[in-house]
Amino acid sequence: MFFNRKELQFEAKPDKPDPIFAKQLQEVIGGQFGEMSVAMQYLFQGWNTRGNEKYKDLLMDTGTEELGHIEMLATMVAQLLEGAPVYEQEKAASDPVIGAIMGGMNPHHAIVSGLGATPENSAGVPWSGGYIIASGNLLADFRANVNAESQGRLQVARLYSLTDDKGVKDLLSFLLARDTMHQNQWIAAIRDLEEKEGGVIAPSTVPPEWEATEYSHTLYNFSEGEDSASLPWMSGNAPDGHPFKYEQAQAFGQKPILKPGPLESHDTLPEDKLKG
Amino acid sequence: MFFNRKELQFEAKPDKPDPIFAKQLQEVIGGQFGEMSVAMQYLFQGWNTRGNEKYKDLLMDTGTEELGHIEMLATMVAQLLEGAPVYEQEKAASDPVIGAIMGGMNPHHAIVSGLGATPENSAGVPWSGGYIIASGNLLADFRANVNAESQGRLQVARLYSLTDDKGVKDLLSFLLARDTMHQNQWIAAIRDLEEKEGGVIAPSTVPPEWEATEYSHTLYNFSEGEDSASLPWMSGNAPDGHPFKYEQAQAFGQKPILKPGPLESHDTLPEDKLKG
Amino acid sequence: MFFNRKELQFEAKPDKPDPIFAKQLQEVIGGQFGEMSVAMQYLFQGWNTRGNEKYKDLLMDTGTEELGHIEMLATMVAQLLEGAPVYEQEKAASDPVIGAIMGGMNPHHAIVSGLGATPENSAGVPWSGGYIIASGNLLADFRANVNAESQGRLQVARLYSLTDDKGVKDLLSFLLARDTMHQNQWIAAIRDLEEKEGGVIAPSTVPPEWEATEYSHTLYNFSEGEDSASLPWMSGNAPDGHPFKYEQAQAFGQKPILKPGPLESHDTLPEDKLKG
Amino acid sequence: MFFNRKELQFEAKPDKPDPIFAKQLQEVIGGQFGEMSVAMQYLFQGWNTRGNEKYKDLLMDTGTEELGHIEMLATMVAQLLEGAPVYEQEKAASDPVIGAIMGGMNPHHAIVSGLGATPENSAGVPWSGGYIIASGNLLADFRANVNAESQGRLQVARLYSLTDDKGVKDLLSFLLARDTMHQNQWIAAIRDLEEKEGGVIAPSTVPPEWEATEYSHTLYNFSEGEDSASLPWMSGNAPDGHPFKYEQAQAFGQKPILKPGPLESHDTLPEDKLKG
Amino acid sequence: MFFNRKELQFEAKPDKPDPIFAKQLQEVIGGQFGEMSVAMQYLFQGWNTRGNEKYKDLLMDTGTEELGHIEMLATMVAQLLEGAPVYEQEKAASDPVIGAIMGGMNPHHAIVSGLGATPENSAGVPWSGGYIIASGNLLADFRANVNAESQGRLQVARLYSLTDDKGVKDLLSFLLARDTMHQNQWIAAIRDLEEKEGGVIAPSTVPPEWEATEYSHTLYNFSEGEDSASLPWMSGNAPDGHPFKYEQAQAFGQKPILKPGPLESHDTLPEDKLKG
Amino acid sequence: MFFNRKELQFEAKPDKPDPIFAKQLQEVIGGQFGEMSVAMQYLFQGWNTRGNEKYKDLLMDTGTEELGHIEMLATMVAQLLEGAPVYEQEKAASDPVIGAIMGGMNPHHAIVSGLGATPENSAGVPWSGGYIIASGNLLADFRANVNAESQGRLQVARLYSLTDDKGVKDLLSFLLARDTMHQNQWIAAIRDLEEKEGGVIAPSTVPPEWEATEYSHTLYNFSEGEDSASLPWMSGNAPDGHPFKYEQAQAFGQKPILKPGPLESHDTLPEDKLKG
Ligand SMILES: [Ca+2]
Ligand SMILES: [Ca+2]
Ligand SMILES: [Ca+2]
Ligand SMILES: [Ca+2]
Ligand SMILES: [Ca+2]
Ligand SMILES: [Ca+2]
Repeated sequence: MFFNRKELQFEAKPDKPDPIFAKQLQEVIGGQFGEMSVAMQYLFQGWNTRGNEKYKDLLMDTGTEELGHIEMLATMVAQLLEGAPVYEQEKAASDPVIGAIMGGMNPHHAIVSGLGATPENSAGVPWSGGYIIASGNLLADFRANVNAESQGRLQVARLYSLTDDKGVKDLLSFLLARDTMHQNQWIAAIRDLEEKEGGVIAPSTVPPEWEATEYSHTLYNFSEGEDSASLPWMSGNAPDGHPFKYEQAQAFGQKPILKPGPLESHDTLPEDKLKG
Repeated sequence: MFFNRKELQFEAKPDKPDPIFAKQLQEVIGGQFGEMSVAMQYLFQGWNTRGNEKYKDLLMDTGTEELGHIEMLATMVAQLLEGAPVYEQEKAASDPVIGAIMGGMNPHHAIVSGLGATPENSAGVPWSGGYIIASGNLLADFRANVNAESQGRLQVARLYSLTDDKGVKDLLSFLLARDTMHQNQWIAAIRDLEEKEGGVIAPSTVPPEWEATEYSHTLYNFSEGEDSASLPWMSGNAPDGHPFKYEQAQAFGQKPILKPGPLESHDTLPEDKLKG
Repeated sequence: MFFNRKELQFEAKPDKPDPIFAKQLQEVIGGQFGEMSVAMQYLFQGWNTRGNEKYKDLLMDTGTEELGHIEMLATMVAQLLEGAPVYEQEKAASDPVIGAIMGGMNPHHAIVSGLGATPENSAGVPWSGGYIIASGNLLADFRANVNAESQGRLQVARLYSLTDDKGVKDLLSFLLARDTMHQNQWIAAIRDLEEKEGGVIAPSTVPPEWEATEYSHTLYNFSEGEDSASLPWMSGNAPDGHPFKYEQAQAFGQKPILKPGPLESHDTLPEDKLKG
Repeated sequence: MFFNRKELQFEAKPDKPDPIFAKQLQEVIGGQFGEMSVAMQYLFQGWNTRGNEKYKDLLMDTGTEELGHIEMLATMVAQLLEGAPVYEQEKAASDPVIGAIMGGMNPHHAIVSGLGATPENSAGVPWSGGYIIASGNLLADFRANVNAESQGRLQVARLYSLTDDKGVKDLLSFLLARDTMHQNQWIAAIRDLEEKEGGVIAPSTVPPEWEATEYSHTLYNFSEGEDSASLPWMSGNAPDGHPFKYEQAQAFGQKPILKPGPLESHDTLPEDKLKG
Repeated sequence: MFFNRKELQFEAKPDKPDPIFAKQLQEVIGGQFGEMSVAMQYLFQGWNTRGNEKYKDLLMDTGTEELGHIEMLATMVAQLLEGAPVYEQEKAASDPVIGAIMGGMNPHHAIVSGLGATPENSAGVPWSGGYIIASGNLLADFRANVNAESQGRLQVARLYSLTDDKGVKDLLSFLLARDTMHQNQWIAAIRDLEEKEGGVIAPSTVPPEWEATEYSHTLYNFSEGEDSASLPWMSGNAPDGHPFKYEQAQAFGQKPILKPGPLESHDTLPEDKLKG
Repeated sequence: MFFNRKELQFEAKPDKPDPIFAKQLQEVIGGQFGEMSVAMQYLFQGWNTRGNEKYKDLLMDTGTEELGHIEMLATMVAQLLEGAPVYEQEKAASDPVIGAIMGGMNPHHAIVSGLGATPENSAGVPWSGGYIIASGNLLADFRANVNAESQGRLQVARLYSLTDDKGVKDLLSFLLARDTMHQNQWIAAIRDLEEKEGGVIAPSTVPPEWEATEYSHTLYNFSEGEDSASLPWMSGNAPDGHPFKYEQAQAFGQKPILKPGPLESHDTLPEDKLKG
């Protein structure tokens, strides 16, 4: 069960309106690695956790925090659109700067949301449940999480260079910091699980006889040149303890020939049925 | 530039038809972590790599291999549908097993593809470019990759229990092994980059003055109870070297009050304008 | 800022596993009118509210409650999948009931989420930000809300007939009641705004000279027969106070003829350029 | 069965080309509440109507009219793109106005449709069948309809301020009027059904013993502060006749603890299996 | 402007309910090549036609007919769901046939639409505007149309084998016939345009100096083996009159090396900046 | 199994950066008819081909070539973004050209991909597996292919007018040529199959008694006016050899009346049950 407190987790006050940046900032609300993604990802992982209550609690802590991040960013977008020349069609004709704003902003901010944030990315594509990951395997999912926080922090860093508004930069500074913490915590949790599960390969529960282990440590060269062979770690042991090998790619399988379909499939008949 | 060799990378021959498993196997062709995703993810990462030719080569090697994995699985699906009672409406009425197959299979295999694989997941949802990740930052992206191979191997392991077909299991054994190798290589590459970049927080190029570092190492408690505080790693240093802290969540920001919109937005007027 | 309490808002304990119903129940988690939709819809409406703090508070109350509804349903789905014969391939061959379950369940519950809920509807389609509505106009949006609660309650009522599990029915009873309350509150709020805005037509801020009012009260007959003319309310005044009219549809506009495109568009040349 | 008449329902002739406005106008063709949505929504509702032929006729009348609205708007977009400097790359370098047009327009209008309308919204996102609502319950669906016409009229009103083209404004005036009529008719129909069904809570056919009625009239306070309690209608009866109550949110349910998954799910093992 | 006539274009009366076939039949309503696709495709093509009024009329004729095809199929689906054991949970436990129906049908037919058709394909995926094609070039678009009618007729033929219901088969017979007509008409129109435009390569308006014509007639061999070289037509002239050539694929381009990104992109630094 | 060669199939070197054109060029990477579509379409068709090894080889040749086309275009986009004023917020305020670039470019190129190509179209919408076609019927699919190459070549021709960069135009010249070849080859293959199958109507395997052939050659007039009747080919034989007919549209079917739903559907009760 959730509760809401009116105050934001951190100050979210831009110095001035900026509809173009409002469009760009949508990426970290409703993009693949926006706050909607991490909030829903951590909450679904928490709700689906089986038999690991401490990690369930960590997931609920972090997912719940992320709900508040959507809130801060939505509030920021709404304020970036306040007082902006969004509907000033007549001025746009004579003032190229206003014209550029009206052409370059997210049209949804003018037409659909009435100067509010939308559940969309910076191109106006709606957020999708297909972005999130909650597999029931915590090691796999914490890897998804450290990736999400890495991609998210990268996007925040890029947005930092796309604005010179001090108020906006303050909020981005806070988000950079929280993404640092979240990278730290998921990395620490991964190390914990790798140690407890006794290995780095997820899932650790696959019986060895299920796996064709003779193919588990070889880098096959599928592209011209052997640059990849000289990567420093290729000459050592793999993280799971066995030595890496390097080989030219080869085919171990058959040349596939499919049988003709039944008449009911109305597939093209085989060549010899067609001819003559 | 790419070339195709007719033989498959590994044998892909089921012992018998199985339309229900053909539907399930689609997950690792066109699902969020299917072979279409990893192929396109590694290739786009390779094409976008700037100034790191060895890693570009590694990405092209692996992305190109994954194209061949789509091929093996598509071939397997096509064979699992060969000779199956897909269109036997009359038998279905009297034979509940045939009826269950006709009701439980992916209708696209009968109606759309004519007994061939489709670019869809196990629920019939088309593959989306929104699944893939190629950010230009290799550390962030290799974390995406180790996650993708962890989720992918997890799904293959689950599929292994969903069939008792020896030919299918052989292919899944090979895929388990290749996912082991790919987890190994991306973990090794992550360690290499973390060492060379001098830290685990991505991106490593954010100037320290951009970040509100006082918030970078604190786990805020946003959910009832303090289970997460007792996670073993919480009492030590974070992966970036600073000690973790644990605090009750608090609000550092304002209570947000938005100004009324302009008349052109036709937002609801403020309460005091409405009244009276 | 949000907080989470561990206890659920209401008991969510099924009496027995049921993977088919777990698939169906996903509709009210991640479907068009599932709890993800209403939670996000109310929160975005709340975050975007300008100058109406009481309604902002109501929206935050209700949106925050709905987050807890996702939680209850996700927990219910996870338990409906506990102990079910999901991976029992060998038994499926001999036991048609187990076979029907393995073919009829959502394959994502077995392969993707490892027996957990997913952010998808009952057909396995991911939730989309395109479902939600937050326009900045509260009258319009409360109409969206009363619709959402009507569709949602309708779906819960249908799900009630699709299970005979007492524990599941108890939760559905609670959800029926909350949807009753939410319909009540949005209807009351609509009446309040209609009264304060002085009319039922949204948005109420359109200047009369913008509108071609001679077309504002006529039902045009575009389909054979005049059944619609005999609807009881057609003989009275419209809700905005003017009498309804009934007319055969007619054309007031031009027959559209588009000019040829420029050469750079490579559209088909006009007929007279093609000929000869 | 449908027929088409060449003349448009209303004049659709812009005074001059305007590619930026052509992009914006797409919202009411292929957006969530564009004419494609209302046309398909009313037609599917009509086709699915059971036992209420007058309302079926009303739905067919209105859905068929909306098909003609798509036609008018598509014709308008095509004309707004006629004679515009869409492909004038060389002029764009020296003339910032032309440059802004080529950068700010919907690229699909230049590249994909060759100066024609597309089935997309103003951000270029394709129309989705996921937008529409046809539940078989007319009261619920008419609420969807009054919402759709409210959102649609709101968007048309905003577009009215985004152009100063007299020809375009004339068409928007007509659309404002038709949306007024459609709001009027759906509101009248809702009142009719509420009266005939004997209540405002949809669906009205839920037996009382299905519902946990002790939760049907309480507004739970889930967010800090009690602003919502002072809404005027909170002190009266709910629309269904029972008094509203106001209470602090509380938990009626269990603290959810999920059982470990079976080995075949390869979920993370429970903490005590991992340790030691 | 459109009008609707109550009678269907053809009889649509199933002999008996069949929820599984209702699910399958959705493919030709809301699938990639369902009637929603062809209706919208032809109408958008018609609305966007410039300077070819006869073809505009043909497109409006055919698009308008297809609207009536959606209507027939939606009516058929609604009737296939009438009287079916959709909600009979108690019988399902004891009767495996009823259980298979409840598990194998589209859950949306029970939960979302209340026994009506939905704007979705046979897997429950919503129809997308991304399916349709309207480019402004009639030759290109008529090729899209002949493809759409070929895929559509193929799917209808497959559906014909998936049912033994006489009433359903009668409607499918009619649809097969109309798809035959539509293939005939688009093929005839293509021949007409190819003749008038003076060639088969679309668009015919590309100036010859834009094209690197030395690459316009060569089949490059990118896959092992030369089976494709022995296709009968490879030894003759291409349809545009020039002889076909067959060559081994070769690279004409550079080995791509991208420059490092600016610091603001936070891409991984180049290898030599990372080292040391 | 696939292999990659480092050199590109053709030179891909722009003369100068151009972020706006980089956005536009994405259409032919990740749009409906971009190279991702044709690559995946031909490969899935190849993998699903049954009993026609020469055509399978042709499909693998062409699909594999198209993978290299994605590569060339991705490389081009990455270079068009090199050295561009993407993050120069301070200059943008004073220099309207830089401001227009930052507002008009694809925000994903700055924020998400770090100056690399993305799997999206020119509006930023992710590529979808729903675009591609692989039906198992080669005649139908080759019609899809000739359409794809026609639409693709049309888009390349339009892009040619949207840039004056010599390096970019060189690559577009090559792509125009390859699309010419691919149109040639699919047209030749279609003629071959039509001849071998003995007719132009796909699929050719439908038994004549399945089809209501009295409706197979009539153009019904569904739209006002008879322009379409005067199309030159209407007075001759259809491509399948039978004469075309022209008739006013008429209804052959019933007026559809659906029965009330069961109580469990909670559909609106029939009018006579509601009344009184
Ligand atoms: Ca965050
Ligand atoms: Ca793989
Ligand atoms: Ca709820
Ligand atoms: Ca309308
Ligand atoms: Ca049709
Ligand atoms: Ca190509």
